[in-house]
Amino acid sequence: MKVALAQINPTVGDIGGNVDRILDYARRAAAAGADLAVFPELCVCGYPPLDLLENDSFVDSCEAGLARIEAGLPDGLAAIVGSPIRNPTPVGKRIFNAAVLIDDGQRMATIHKALLPTYDVFDEYRYFEPGHERAIVEWRGHRIGLHICEDMWNNEEQADYHLYRENPVDELADLGAEIFINISASPFSLGKHRRRTEVVEEICREHGLPFILVNQVGANTEVVFDGDSRVHAADGSLVRCAPSFEEALIIWDSESGPEKCPAGYAESEELHGALVLGIADYFHKTGAFSKALVGLSGGIDSAVTCALAVDALGSDNVVGVTMPSRYSSEGSISDSRDLAENLGIEFHNIPIEPAVDAFGKMLEPVFHGTQEGIAEENIQARSRGVTLMGISNKFNYLLLSTGNKSEMSVGYATLYGDMSGGLAVLADVYKTQVYDLARYMNEWAGREVIPRSTIDKPPSAELRPDQKDSDSLPEYDVLDAILRQYIEGQRDLRRIVAATGYAENLVEQILNLVDRNEYKRRQAAPGIRVSTKAFGMGRRVPIVMRWSRADAGIKTKVQTG
Amino acid sequence: MKVALAQINPTVGDIGGNVDRILDYARRAAAAGADLAVFPELCVCGYPPLDLLENDSFVDSCEAGLARIEAGLPDGLAAIVGSPIRNPTPVGKRIFNAAVLIDDGQRMATIHKALLPTYDVFDEYRYFEPGHERAIVEWRGHRIGLHICEDMWNNEEQADYHLYRENPVDELADLGAEIFINISASPFSLGKHRRRTEVVEEICREHGLPFILVNQVGANTEVVFDGDSRVHAADGSLVRCAPSFEEALIIWDSESGPEKCPAGYAESEELHGALVLGIADYFHKTGAFSKALVGLSGGIDSAVTCALAVDALGSDNVVGVTMPSRYSSEGSISDSRDLAENLGIEFHNIPIEPAVDAFGKMLEPVFHGTQEGIAEENIQARSRGVTLMGISNKFNYLLLSTGNKSEMSVGYATLYGDMSGGLAVLADVYKTQVYDLARYMNEWAGREVIPRSTIDKPPSAELRPDQKDSDSLPEYDVLDAILRQYIEGQRDLRRIVAATGYAENLVEQILNLVDRNEYKRRQAAPGIRVSTKAFGMGRRVPIVMRWSRADAGIKTKVQTG
Repeated sequence: MKVALAQINPTVGDIGGNVDRILDYARRAAAAGADLAVFPELCVCGYPPLDLLENDSFVDSCEAGLARIEAGLPDGLAAIVGSPIRNPTPVGKRIFNAAVLIDDGQRMATIHKALLPTYDVFDEYRYFEPGHERAIVEWRGHRIGLHICEDMWNNEEQADYHLYRENPVDELADLGAEIFINISASPFSLGKHRRRTEVVEEICREHGLPFILVNQVGANTEVVFDGDSRVHAADGSLVRCAPSFEEALIIWDSESGPEKCPAGYAESEELHGALVLGIADYFHKTGAFSKALVGLSGGIDSAVTCALAVDALGSDNVVGVTMPSRYSSEGSISDSRDLAENLGIEFHNIPIEPAVDAFGKMLEPVFHGTQEGIAEENIQARSRGVTLMGISNKFNYLLLSTGNKSEMSVGYATLYGDMSGGLAVLADVYKTQVYDLARYMNEWAGREVIPRSTIDKPPSAELRPDQKDSDSLPEYDVLDAILRQYIEGQRDLRRIVAATGYAENLVEQILNLVDRNEYKRRQAAPGIRVSTKAFGMGRRVPIVMRWSRADAGIKTKVQTG
Repeated sequence: MKVALAQINPTVGDIGGNVDRILDYARRAAAAGADLAVFPELCVCGYPPLDLLENDSFVDSCEAGLARIEAGLPDGLAAIVGSPIRNPTPVGKRIFNAAVLIDDGQRMATIHKALLPTYDVFDEYRYFEPGHERAIVEWRGHRIGLHICEDMWNNEEQADYHLYRENPVDELADLGAEIFINISASPFSLGKHRRRTEVVEEICREHGLPFILVNQVGANTEVVFDGDSRVHAADGSLVRCAPSFEEALIIWDSESGPEKCPAGYAESEELHGALVLGIADYFHKTGAFSKALVGLSGGIDSAVTCALAVDALGSDNVVGVTMPSRYSSEGSISDSRDLAENLGIEFHNIPIEPAVDAFGKMLEPVFHGTQEGIAEENIQARSRGVTLMGISNKFNYLLLSTGNKSEMSVGYATLYGDMSGGLAVLADVYKTQVYDLARYMNEWAGREVIPRSTIDKPPSAELRPDQKDSDSLPEYDVLDAILRQYIEGQRDLRRIVAATGYAENLVEQILNLVDRNEYKRRQAAPGIRVSTKAFGMGRRVPIVMRWSRADAGIKTKVQTG
C-alpha cells in the first residue's frame, strides 16, 4: 500500500480552483507511484465554508466538483476527498460532512463525520447531520478505518469526561480496521503539533494499528490550518511527517521504514509561520489588494506587524506610514524610519496636527469648558485611522491593524482609530509574545530588522505628554498571566487568584475590563487565530449583559456597554 | 387551575436582578390568586447568555439564583422557571437547558430541552446536552406536558421535511399530558406572531389539549423578544394573549371563558415596537450612557433613527448633530433642523470642511496626481464619524448608526464613517420599510414629525456634487425585492431571476455586491434583528472566499476582500 498524503491549501468557496488543485496533486501522487491519494476534510470547498453551505447552489457546486474528480483521476490511482454531500432523507440537517473514496471513476465508499465539533470556532452542527453508523471501507483487499477530524478526538481512555457518547475510532477497530485514515481540517494553535501527536500515539498503541492523518494547510479569514499531516506506525511512533504552514505531498509506503521527524517547534517559530501564512493567504485569496499598508508608531506592535507583512508579501508589497502628533517623541519617527529602511519598504511621514487642530476647532463650541481626556486622545488615533484608510481606499492597499491581544483584551485601543484595518495581525498574540517574536525575527535575520530601541523602550500610546502603558495597566507579564488564565484557561476570579497569587482586586479589575470591552472587539477586524481561544468567532460574549460575580458569592457588579 | 403567565424582561447575566424580578412577579401572581406562575426559558440568566455559559462561576450563580427562588416563592404558589443546570454525568455537554417546577420550597420536577436550535442566531448545541428522555410533570393532580421553546417546533404533520428526529410534543401527548406548557425565548421577526399562532393551533387540534406559552420579552444586544405569550384552548382557539414588546402578567383560569385577542399587527406597527424596545433595552441594560446621539443628514434613515430614539428614550435624552460639507444641499441642513425642532431635541450644526481640508492637505503628497473618487468621499464620511465619536466619548453618549439593510447589504456605507456607532438601529430594515415606518410614525403622531421633504426627496449620500443613490444602485423597490430573495429567502441566482423576473445580470451584480461586502458588515455595530435573517450573528459568511457560481453551472467568479 503506497499512500500519498496531499496536504493542500484550498480556498473557501473556490470549488473550481480546489478541484484543479486536487487533480494536480493526484497526478503528482500517481507519478510518484502511489495507489491512493488522501486529501483533507471538505477540501472540495475549503474549510470553514460557514453559511455558504446553506446555499443550495453551493452544495450543487460541490457535487459537480466531485464528479470532475471522479472523471479526472489518473488511471490506477484511488483518492479520498472531503466534501459536503446531501442528506437524502427528509429528517435532520440537510447535508453530511463526508469522506468519499473514489476509484476507477466511481464513488466506492462514502463515510459521514460522526462527531461534529460545535464549540470555539466550530459550528458544525449548524450545518451537518452526524453520521449515525460506522462502517469499514474495503478497498483493494485493505480494511480502512476511514473517519473525519473530530471523530478521532474522543478517544482518551484515561479522561474522566467525554464530550461525545460515541467513539468512532473504537467502533472502527471493533469492526476490524487494519489501518486508520483520518482526513482533517484541524486548526493550528500553539502546542497543537504535540497534542495531535499524543492523541494519535495513544490510538495506535491502544489498537495496534497504523494511522494516517491528512490535514488542510492555509489560512481562511481568521483560522489558520498548519498541515502537520503525518503517518504513525502501529506502535504509535511517528514515521512520516509533512511540514507545517506549507503545502506538501508526502509518500508513505507501508513496506518501508520510518523517516526522521522534528521533535517539535519553538513557540516564536510556530507563531511566525502561522502569522506569515495568515497575512499571505488573506492577501492572495481575496485577490482584492495591490499592497499591504501599516501605520508605524515606532512601537513594537507595528514594527513586528510590518516585518511579518514583509516576510509574507515581500518588501515591494508593503508600505509604511508614520503619523506623528505633538506627543510623538523624536525616537518614534526615527525608529519608524529605521524599521522601514531595514525592511526596504516604501515609507511616508504624514503629521496629523492639521486634522487634530481642525477637529479641535470644529468641536470647540460643543466641548467648551470640558477637560481634555479620552475624547481628545481618541481624536488623534482616529485622525490616523482616517489617514490610513484614505491611502488604503485610494491605492487599494490592505490596511493591517497592529493591536496585540493584551490591548484588545482590556480595550486599550481606539475603535475606528488604531483598530482600523482589514486584518488584525497580532490580535491573538499577547504583548509578551510580541517581544519574543521581535527578538526571534532579529535573530533569524542575523541583523537588527526591528530596531533595538523599539524593543527596549517602555511601551506608550503617545496620546498625551509622557504617557506610558504602565500608567493605565499593570506590567505586561502580570497582565498577560491573568489574561491567559481568564481567556484561554476559562477560569474565573477565585481560581485565577489561587493560581497566580495576584491580588484579588487587581485580577478583578482586569476581568471587568475584559468583559466591558466586548463592544470594541465586536467591531474589530478579524484576527489571525494562534491560541486555543481567540477573540472573534470562537468567543461569543454578549455586549449587553450585567453579570455580577456577587451572584456566585463573588463581589462586584460588571456593567458593560 | 389558575395560571399566571409571567412575561418578563430579564437582562442577560444579571442573575440577582432577574431573580428579584421573578420573585416580584411571583408575589403579584399569588396576589391575583394564581396556583402556578410560569416564567420564560432561561429567565434566571436571560437569553441568550452565549459563552457566559462556559464560565463555571456563571452556572454557579444560576444555581444560587434557583435556590433563592425556592426559598422565596409565596406560600401556595408553584412556579416554573428556566435555568441552565449542570449535566451530572461525565458524558456530553456540561449543562442542560432546563425547566424547573418549584413548589413548597423544593424542585418537584426538572425537564431538559430536547431540541436545541443550532441555526441562524441560535447556538444551543454549543452549550447544552439535549434531553434524551421525555416525562410528564405530575403536579397537584395535573399531568403537564412541560417542554421548552424549540421542542414545539418540529410538529408540522404536513411538512415533508423535519429538522429533528424526535417530536417531544407528540411524545408528551402519548405519555398522557392533559395540558401543554411551553417556556420560550423565541425571538421576534416580522410575521412571527401569526406563525406562532399557526403552530400552536395545530398542536392543540392534533392532540385536543390546551396550550400555555410563556415567552421572554425584551432586547438583548441584537436579538429582540416580543413576548406574545398566550393560552390556546383545546380546540386551538386563542383565549388569552399578552401584549407584544412589553412586560405583562396574564392570569388564565382553566374554568373561565375566552377573552378577545388582536387578530394581528400591521408591519410598521410591529417594526416600531421592536426597534423602540431594541434601543431602550440597549441603553438601559448597559447603563453605560447618559444620552443617545444621532448624526442627521437630512435623509430618511437618520430622521427615522432619531425619531425612534426619542420614542425609546424621550426627547431630553437624544442629541442630533448635522455635519454639512460643501456637497450638502441647503435642504439637508434645514430638514435636519426641522426634524430636531419637531422632536424637541438638542441640536448642533458642525460643518466638516475644516477636517476634510486638513486631510486633503495631509494626503496631498501621497495622493498627488490621482483622480478624486471613493477615497475622498470616504474621508467626508469618516470626518463625520470622528466628530460624532468625539462627542460620544466626551459626554458618554450612545452613538446610534443609521444605515439601513439595503445599504448594508450592498456595502453602500463607509466603514468607520457613517457605520460608526454602538447600535445600528435600522440595519435589519430595508429602505422601502424605512419609508413605510416614517409615514406610520407621522400618521400615528398626527403631525409631521419626519419632515415631508425628507420623505419626498430622492435619496442621496451627498458625498459628491448632485450624487443620487440611483447613480450606483437600482431603485430601492427593485433592490429590496432581490435582497429579500437572497438574504431571507436564501435563494440563489437562477431561482431569484425566476421568482422576480429581473434581468440575470442585474440580479447577479446585486448578489456579488452582497458577497463582496461581508468585510464591512463584520466590523459593523450590532443591529436590531427584526427579520428572519439579519446580518450579524445569524448570518456567518466567510470574508476570504471565492465562490464562483460558474461551478454550479452559473456564470461569473465572485471575489471578495
